[in-house]
Amino acid sequence: MSEKKAIKVTVIGGGSSYTPELVEGLIKGYQDMPISELWLVDIEEGKHKLEIVGNLAKRMVRKSGLPMEVHLTLDRRTAIKGADFVTTQMRVGLLEARKLDEHIPISHGVIGQETTGPGGMFKALRTIPVILDICRDIEELAPDAWMLNFTNPAGMITEAVTKYSRVKTVGLCNSPVNFKKFLAEAYGVDEKQVLPEFVGINHLHWVTSALVDGQEKLPELLGGKAEYSAKNVPTLGWEPGFLESLGAVPTYYLRYFYMMTEMFEEMKKSLEEDGTRADIVSRVEKELFELYKDETLEDKPKQLEQRGGAYYSEAAVNLMQSLYLGRNDIQTLNVPNGGVFDFLPADASIEVNCVVTALGPIPLVPQHIPAHIIGLLQAVKTYESTAIDAAVSGDRGLALQALAHHPLIPSVSTAKVILDEMLEAHKKYLPNFFS
Amino acid sequence: MSEKKAIKVTVIGGGSSYTPELVEGLIKGYQDMPISELWLVDIEEGKHKLEIVGNLAKRMVRKSGLPMEVHLTLDRRTAIKGADFVTTQMRVGLLEARKLDEHIPISHGVIGQETTGPGGMFKALRTIPVILDICRDIEELAPDAWMLNFTNPAGMITEAVTKYSRVKTVGLCNSPVNFKKFLAEAYGVDEKQVLPEFVGINHLHWVTSALVDGQEKLPELLGGKAEYSAKNVPTLGWEPGFLESLGAVPTYYLRYFYMMTEMFEEMKKSLEEDGTRADIVSRVEKELFELYKDETLEDKPKQLEQRGGAYYSEAAVNLMQSLYLGRNDIQTLNVPNGGVFDFLPADASIEVNCVVTALGPIPLVPQHIPAHIIGLLQAVKTYESTAIDAAVSGDRGLALQALAHHPLIPSVSTAKVILDEMLEAHKKYLPNFFS
Amino acid sequence: MSEKKAIKVTVIGGGSSYTPELVEGLIKGYQDMPISELWLVDIEEGKHKLEIVGNLAKRMVRKSGLPMEVHLTLDRRTAIKGADFVTTQMRVGLLEARKLDEHIPISHGVIGQETTGPGGMFKALRTIPVILDICRDIEELAPDAWMLNFTNPAGMITEAVTKYSRVKTVGLCNSPVNFKKFLAEAYGVDEKQVLPEFVGINHLHWVTSALVDGQEKLPELLGGKAEYSAKNVPTLGWEPGFLESLGAVPTYYLRYFYMMTEMFEEMKKSLEEDGTRADIVSRVEKELFELYKDETLEDKPKQLEQRGGAYYSEAAVNLMQSLYLGRNDIQTLNVPNGGVFDFLPADASIEVNCVVTALGPIPLVPQHIPAHIIGLLQAVKTYESTAIDAAVSGDRGLALQALAHHPLIPSVSTAKVILDEMLEAHKKYLPNFFS
Amino acid sequence: MSEKKAIKVTVIGGGSSYTPELVEGLIKGYQDMPISELWLVDIEEGKHKLEIVGNLAKRMVRKSGLPMEVHLTLDRRTAIKGADFVTTQMRVGLLEARKLDEHIPISHGVIGQETTGPGGMFKALRTIPVILDICRDIEELAPDAWMLNFTNPAGMITEAVTKYSRVKTVGLCNSPVNFKKFLAEAYGVDEKQVLPEFVGINHLHWVTSALVDGQEKLPELLGGKAEYSAKNVPTLGWEPGFLESLGAVPTYYLRYFYMMTEMFEEMKKSLEEDGTRADIVSRVEKELFELYKDETLEDKPKQLEQRGGAYYSEAAVNLMQSLYLGRNDIQTLNVPNGGVFDFLPADASIEVNCVVTALGPIPLVPQHIPAHIIGLLQAVKTYESTAIDAAVSGDRGLALQALAHHPLIPSVSTAKVILDEMLEAHKKYLPNFFS
Repeated sequence: MSEKKAIKVTVIGGGSSYTPELVEGLIKGYQDMPISELWLVDIEEGKHKLEIVGNLAKRMVRKSGLPMEVHLTLDRRTAIKGADFVTTQMRVGLLEARKLDEHIPISHGVIGQETTGPGGMFKALRTIPVILDICRDIEELAPDAWMLNFTNPAGMITEAVTKYSRVKTVGLCNSPVNFKKFLAEAYGVDEKQVLPEFVGINHLHWVTSALVDGQEKLPELLGGKAEYSAKNVPTLGWEPGFLESLGAVPTYYLRYFYMMTEMFEEMKKSLEEDGTRADIVSRVEKELFELYKDETLEDKPKQLEQRGGAYYSEAAVNLMQSLYLGRNDIQTLNVPNGGVFDFLPADASIEVNCVVTALGPIPLVPQHIPAHIIGLLQAVKTYESTAIDAAVSGDRGLALQALAHHPLIPSVSTAKVILDEMLEAHKKYLPNFFS
Repeated sequence: MSEKKAIKVTVIGGGSSYTPELVEGLIKGYQDMPISELWLVDIEEGKHKLEIVGNLAKRMVRKSGLPMEVHLTLDRRTAIKGADFVTTQMRVGLLEARKLDEHIPISHGVIGQETTGPGGMFKALRTIPVILDICRDIEELAPDAWMLNFTNPAGMITEAVTKYSRVKTVGLCNSPVNFKKFLAEAYGVDEKQVLPEFVGINHLHWVTSALVDGQEKLPELLGGKAEYSAKNVPTLGWEPGFLESLGAVPTYYLRYFYMMTEMFEEMKKSLEEDGTRADIVSRVEKELFELYKDETLEDKPKQLEQRGGAYYSEAAVNLMQSLYLGRNDIQTLNVPNGGVFDFLPADASIEVNCVVTALGPIPLVPQHIPAHIIGLLQAVKTYESTAIDAAVSGDRGLALQALAHHPLIPSVSTAKVILDEMLEAHKKYLPNFFS
Repeated sequence: MSEKKAIKVTVIGGGSSYTPELVEGLIKGYQDMPISELWLVDIEEGKHKLEIVGNLAKRMVRKSGLPMEVHLTLDRRTAIKGADFVTTQMRVGLLEARKLDEHIPISHGVIGQETTGPGGMFKALRTIPVILDICRDIEELAPDAWMLNFTNPAGMITEAVTKYSRVKTVGLCNSPVNFKKFLAEAYGVDEKQVLPEFVGINHLHWVTSALVDGQEKLPELLGGKAEYSAKNVPTLGWEPGFLESLGAVPTYYLRYFYMMTEMFEEMKKSLEEDGTRADIVSRVEKELFELYKDETLEDKPKQLEQRGGAYYSEAAVNLMQSLYLGRNDIQTLNVPNGGVFDFLPADASIEVNCVVTALGPIPLVPQHIPAHIIGLLQAVKTYESTAIDAAVSGDRGLALQALAHHPLIPSVSTAKVILDEMLEAHKKYLPNFFS
Repeated sequence: MSEKKAIKVTVIGGGSSYTPELVEGLIKGYQDMPISELWLVDIEEGKHKLEIVGNLAKRMVRKSGLPMEVHLTLDRRTAIKGADFVTTQMRVGLLEARKLDEHIPISHGVIGQETTGPGGMFKALRTIPVILDICRDIEELAPDAWMLNFTNPAGMITEAVTKYSRVKTVGLCNSPVNFKKFLAEAYGVDEKQVLPEFVGINHLHWVTSALVDGQEKLPELLGGKAEYSAKNVPTLGWEPGFLESLGAVPTYYLRYFYMMTEMFEEMKKSLEEDGTRADIVSRVEKELFELYKDETLEDKPKQLEQRGGAYYSEAAVNLMQSLYLGRNDIQTLNVPNGGVFDFLPADASIEVNCVVTALGPIPLVPQHIPAHIIGLLQAVKTYESTAIDAAVSGDRGLALQALAHHPLIPSVSTAKVILDEMLEAHKKYLPNFFS
């Protein structure tokens, strides 16, 4: 490995509360992948947070004793120039926008969520033009860089980048990582001994096989042990018998589709009692930044783990290392479909197991695709692809088509009302639609 | 044509109130296609109706002076033996079952309709085993016969026959015929001068091009003239602007999906005021049979046209003639997908324009498929294929999966409740599920 | 039809000996499709021929008494401006080049033919850049025009146009027309009563069904009556039994593949005795032009029919009329594959039955595709697509790959020798390869 | 791993000269995969060889001190009963038949080779019925067993098994293994550090990427270092420039297609000088069996490595272990295509990189498929699939179609002559064709 050059990593949205996780990961992984420069870049509005987080990052690196430079900057182009990896973790419109994404749909009787339904669509509409703008810089200043995208909705963002730029990109979500950890823990084995098969797209997938130490454990999981869900979301019971005939473990976000009525009620109630998820996150973030300010703090604080994005850092560093080292290990990633699912377009992003080679991830064709899920998968993907085109073009007709065909929307008239209200509410961040 | 042999036509469900239409059509078309034997066959419960309708048929033929024998029988095998065409128009469970198909879903907040949603699914579950039983007879006794299937849900029935038998079959619906007539009338031209392009499956299709005398009239239709709908269903307005960005005229049954909320409310109200559609049809049928009894009646009575199945006879006779004569004309039919829609399975039934040759219909690949409708189309097809497998196997798990993935169902728990109640209600006609 | 506007037809390569056929066709079809302007355009080297042919055309129109203007010009842009139909019938490099296309391969032991093998490839390499140049004019000056392409190799030219321009195009060959005429004549019926099914691409197709008056006659044809071949090519017997297991009638050009050894020997012998086909055509053309010069001639001379391109005019006028009138009749045309053959790329040109609507041809999915022919079909299509890319790019590596993978070439070293010699021989007409 | 049960391995064709390699491999791998029973089974004609090889195997195991039982038997059903792995390495008709496979085609001017062309086809025709007969036993007596197929032509045999039986099977060839070893050696790295990408089918594939320690080395290999070929076949130079535009390293058997003329000449010459490859192998085998007889021999003799099947044992043991342990490593295997190559049928066997899980291999979709090779790949696969159907049905028409469409056959008449002569010559082993 001696001839491999030292690496420059650029973090777009470097002022995020997640950054200390990533820094910890890069420090731990230094042996295998020596980072010479870490650039944390943010926008003017995020300058204050960037300084707080950036200084903690510097203290963490100093403590490690490693020769890793940490740069804080608002100058994106300088940060990107010559980078080997660019990660994105941003929230256009900040938590205030997320709050609207959650509130408005619910006021019209529809699921209001950060990545699913109208909320997810508007997050995409706000974010895609910004991401593509970043891509223009990468194409020019770091054409060989890999863009690792953590920004939600990760599947749509990744699809937008592969369709509308030449940047090499992979989308990353911690949900498959969480499932693997759950499986390993449930059976008391090392993570390397588990191999679940994921069928689907980001935030909409089914686990259709679950090898633990070479044994298929899916029937067991379907028979009752599947009480798995992400830590930061409410758990509701599945209809007895449904899982067995489904032939797959539905991962968390599928609850919004399979239990639409119940999830809506729960969200509405929770909204009245605790505010939206955005409100809760807002409170947690405030506390985190208070901790980060502490000049004696030289490590990632434990409290960050409650933030919801557990294992993001681990996933990110794993992916970087496999690309850098050509480890050929299996990771679950957002990549273009190609011919993996023959019913989806070749350029649609999907989230499946991949072997990560030095040239990029190669998808593994899933071996078990329950026929009865294809329609739902296609329906959500159709919405996604239409919404991406709407984001790029600013075409309200396309936006209406995307929303009207979303499985969570009961009728065109509801789609129209929500669309109009949300376009107006997010006007500031949707220049494409208001020019 | 002199060497062509005279033809035997067998009508399964010959006691149907529609039969006089078909008889009229066969008489009118005799010149091009000489029918030597017409067999009307029905089941024991339908004997009385068969006699009434059959005697009318005999009087109609006698009046025509044509050498066409009309046979009435309860012996299906004799009726099928050596037939050239077998048509099916049946209602397993009669109007009583249809009433349940409409009532039960509505009582759980879901569209209750004869061919769409839970109602359509249960009509399929009751009918498919009976149709496949008929197919066994045809395979044995008339292996070269064409089965023309008018029985609803026509797309699902046709798919079941092509998947689970070797019988040559085509599914037929009057909805495309009606659209062509509407178009011809709207522009004051002959039907032969119009060519609409249909994209979709039975009772779920979009008109994506509308040539009238070689001119594309779609933009005009989308801009406001599209106030077309079948005569027997309520008309509701479309969201302004929606049609234009849709880029297609949605045909009637799409309202259940695009206007789910409004259609449900309308149905519920109508149910309270007039009873279900089954009740209305029941009243109309009673009146028709009273008319048919009149021994002086020698023609199809005008009132039959209000029954809802306008132009069925015309469509049926047209199809028979094109198959018999090899006319190579364009008709809109239910046929296996093959590679027409690359996102649907090859053996799925679709409803598209076909050239009808002497060897059967050849589908025309639609030239305009709006990307944003693919998800909905796939979702409904996935439900259909799953429900067909459930009908054949009697597997409750599959039935639950079919229903739970239907776009009109809000959650698995609702699917479960409706499924259980309907299985019990139709128990008598679902031996596969209760053995 | 009264509102339909009169039509401008532009003939690129108007000085061709075929032109009188086309003129005759346009005159005969005037009732259905009134041509107001016919522009015959040619290049400087063809001026003399253009005048001879053009004056004959003028005399023919004068005799008809129709109000059709005939224009002769070397100014392509004026000729194209506002055209409704542009036809192309050209030979870049004239018969001299064809002679080389035939001679050089034969000298290296390989079939030397105008449209198949190395000869066809070099005709494509010379022609494609010229055609695409014409397309640039059409895009600018007549963007709604249909380009009807008769220039060989018609399939490759059509594919090049659909891949590398926005011009609406259809490729046309008289070979399917000839087969239909043969079939009608053999069974003593009208052409409208026959429907053969063609599977394949231009100059490489199989007839997999042959309906005559609604009866399947394929088994009969395979059993011995298939002694059909184009009039201008030698007939050789098929291996007894081969046709029956083939399950299809191989059309003429397949002999170069199925009887490579015999056809090569025949060609070589014929070359020694009579010169190449180019020599023969050259003699025939000289005689034709002598006839055309006769100022008293006001009709297409009979001798033109021996020229080999029988029924080109009929095919061309039929196609124009069906596009103009939206006749929705079935014609066999070169169109993009789309999803017709699932093993070929969507943008590959294929030659299959199409319904010709006012919006263009819609392919009919062939119903019988013998599995054992797929490899040969793919092999030739792969060669074609690679050669098209070579023609556009001038990339010698691609040209070598195209030739080396052609089924008639025994080895890469032979491909290399032929390629080098032919590139040099045609240098003048291959600017892309010598810049 | 403690709960994993000890394993029964059955070797069909256990009297093969290769068996000592496999035995050595199983002994070396015992730690990871404990074999409790090794059954060597052969047919009556092979009894003598079985005893010689079997006794050597017993001595080898005895020397190892491992508790592995070695059984020699002619009773296939007992040998198969309850097996975990069944390997097949057989030659129906023995070396005498191979000799005919090589001689007859060459006498008609066509490549005569064990696995390619008419020779390969007849090996398949003889072997497939025998393999399917074995499959019937496995279905009954060891339904969970994996059949590892080494019998040539390995791709066709594997496809026949997956199409015509329910046995779980993987086809294995040492050619990819050899390429990996060549690559590792050429760059002085461990085999685990190389990852070539294989595109194609058994004995017809291209290396389209060659990662060495995460670096792409393909351009280097194409530029001259690609002087790789299997040890047991003659080396000929590639046309300069051809490899670069090919964009892939063609593996050995492609020479029969790309250098048909030269390879034929070489074979013919070699035949005259040394006899066929069958003759050479026959001599080597005789020597080997002389060695094996030596009762003091307790190890695989060095001379076996010259036999040509180097690393078969390593490949076999690796595959068994990965299936047994669920190692999820990458191996190049013959598996059903599914959707990997969208131009090939789903049930065609292909040879590509796979991740070997405990449930079986999952193919990795190749990332680089040169467009210009698709035709040749399809052509050979079409031949293979047709020949498989011919083998199963004994249909001479299909056999003729398979051969007539093989790219190495110049014409149908040649196909016919060779077919007839070879059918007669192998009559004894082709009961399907002579009943």
